[in-house]
Amino acid sequence: MNYDELFCNVKRKKSFLAVGLDSDIRKIPEFLKSKEDPIFEFNKAIVDATAPYCIAYKPNTAFYEQNGPAGMVSFEKTVRYIKDNYPDQFIIADAKRGDIGNTSKMYADAFFDTFGVDAVTLSPYMGLDSASPFLEKDGKWLIVLALTSNKSSQDFEQQIMQNGDKLYELVLKCSSSWGSKENMMYVVGATKAESLSDIRKIVPDHFLLVPGIGAQGGSLDDVAKYGMNSHCGLIVNSSRAIIYASTNEDFAEAAGKEAEKVQKQMELLLEKYI
Amino acid sequence: MNYDELFCNVKRKKSFLAVGLDSDIRKIPEFLKSKEDPIFEFNKAIVDATAPYCIAYKPNTAFYEQNGPAGMVSFEKTVRYIKDNYPDQFIIADAKRGDIGNTSKMYADAFFDTFGVDAVTLSPYMGLDSASPFLEKDGKWLIVLALTSNKSSQDFEQQIMQNGDKLYELVLKCSSSWGSKENMMYVVGATKAESLSDIRKIVPDHFLLVPGIGAQGGSLDDVAKYGMNSHCGLIVNSSRAIIYASTNEDFAEAAGKEAEKVQKQMELLLEKYI
Repeated sequence: MNYDELFCNVKRKKSFLAVGLDSDIRKIPEFLKSKEDPIFEFNKAIVDATAPYCIAYKPNTAFYEQNGPAGMVSFEKTVRYIKDNYPDQFIIADAKRGDIGNTSKMYADAFFDTFGVDAVTLSPYMGLDSASPFLEKDGKWLIVLALTSNKSSQDFEQQIMQNGDKLYELVLKCSSSWGSKENMMYVVGATKAESLSDIRKIVPDHFLLVPGIGAQGGSLDDVAKYGMNSHCGLIVNSSRAIIYASTNEDFAEAAGKEAEKVQKQMELLLEKYI
Repeated sequence: MNYDELFCNVKRKKSFLAVGLDSDIRKIPEFLKSKEDPIFEFNKAIVDATAPYCIAYKPNTAFYEQNGPAGMVSFEKTVRYIKDNYPDQFIIADAKRGDIGNTSKMYADAFFDTFGVDAVTLSPYMGLDSASPFLEKDGKWLIVLALTSNKSSQDFEQQIMQNGDKLYELVLKCSSSWGSKENMMYVVGATKAESLSDIRKIVPDHFLLVPGIGAQGGSLDDVAKYGMNSHCGLIVNSSRAIIYASTNEDFAEAAGKEAEKVQKQMELLLEKYI
C-alpha cells in the first residue's frame, strides 16, 4: 500500500485507528479456548467487528511467538484472513526487529514475502544497514522506533547527545534520509504527546505510528493536536481497550463498539485539523 | 546454566567458541533439501560434528522466521536436540528482541519457557523495562547489544553523548546495574576489537558475546588480547566459516574440522592469558 492509498483510506473511513491484535491466550474469552486455534478465532471475530472503524491492524509478534510455532501459524492465518477479506487494511507486524544487513534481509523477506504484511517495526540501535533491507520493496514500509511509550524511554532514547539533541531526535534526523515519507514511518508513544510538535519540526510529512492511548493512558486529543499534518500523518493504535472490551460471548460486538467510539472521536479531530 | 558452570565448560573443553546456526535453506547442501525438515537435519549433523569443540550454539532467529511457522519448528527441534544430547551446551537465541515491559515478558516466556534456550539477545534502545523480564529466571541470561560488528554501528552506537561517552558506553554503564555478571552479557563485535580494552574498563567481569570472526573479518587473537579476563569472559561466535565449510556430502565433517581449528587457537589463547 502506498502513501496516497493510505491517506485515501483515512479520508474515506474517517479514521486513523490501528487495532492492536495483542491477543493473549490467557485473556481471550473462555469459550474460545476449546477451538482448534483459539487465537485465530478470536482475531477473526475482532477483525470482522472492527474493520469498518479502523484502517490498520497491528499484531505484536511477541504475543504469537509466546505460543511457539503454533503461535506463528495463528499469526500467519490472521494476516492471510485480513488480506483476503479486508484488502484495504494496512497490516503492521510490530516485531521491533533489527540485525546486521544480510540477516535483516531475512526478517524483511520473512515479514514482507512469507507472511505478507505491509510494514514492520524496527529498533534503530544498529543503524542504516539493519534498516535498508526493509526499504527495498515497493509498497512496503519500515517503521522505526523513535520515542516509545514506556517509562524507560528515558534510559537512552531521551538522553542528550553532544550537539544537544536527544537520541531519538538524532534517530529521526539521521534515519529520515534512509527512505522517504513514502516508505518510512516512526513510532512515537501517545504518552509523549507533548513531544510531538518538536518531532513534527524534524519529520513534518512522515506518518507516525502512535501506540499508548487506552490502557497506557495517552490522550487522543493531544496526539492529534500536536501530531496531525495535512495528510493526517497519524496511525493511532489501541490494543487492550478494544480487544478486551468484554471477555464474554459478546467480546467481538463490544470490541466493535469500542472501535466505533474511537473512530467517532477521530472523525471530529480530522474535521478540526484537516 | 550459571556463571561458574559456563567457566567450567570453557576450562574443560579449552574452548570459548559458539557455533552460529545461521542455517539458510539456500546455502545448505543440495542432497539435504529432499528431507522432511532440511534445516533441522543440517543443524543436527553440524551439532554432532562440532559439539566437542564449542561451548555454545547461537541460532539467529531471522534464519528460521524466514521459513514461516515451519522455520520455527526447525528452531524448536534444534534447541530440543541440543538440550537432549548436549546438555552442557549454552544455547543463545540471537533474536535481538525488545518491547515495552508486559510485551517483553512474552518474549522472555517464549524463548526461556516455550523454546527453552539459555540466553536471548536484546536491543537496548527502549531501556530497562524492555530488559527486566529477561532477568527474572534463574540460570537464564540476557545479552544486550553494545557495540555491534556492522558498519552502521557508527550511526548511533558510536555517537557521542553530552558527557563525552559514546552511546554504547552509556548502554554499558547504565545497563550493568540492571543485573549482574551472573545473568547479563554484552554483544561486542570482533571487528571492533580495539574497543575491547575500553569496554573492559566498564564491564571487567561480564561475559562478552563476540560475533564477527571468520566471514566478517575480525581477529580472534585481538579479541582475546583486548577482551579476555580471568574467567575468560568471552564467547566468540563463528557462523558461516564453520557451518558452510563445505557444501558437499562431507559438510558436517568439514564443519567439525573448522571448529576444531578454532578450538585449537582458543586453547593456546586460554593458556596465554589465563
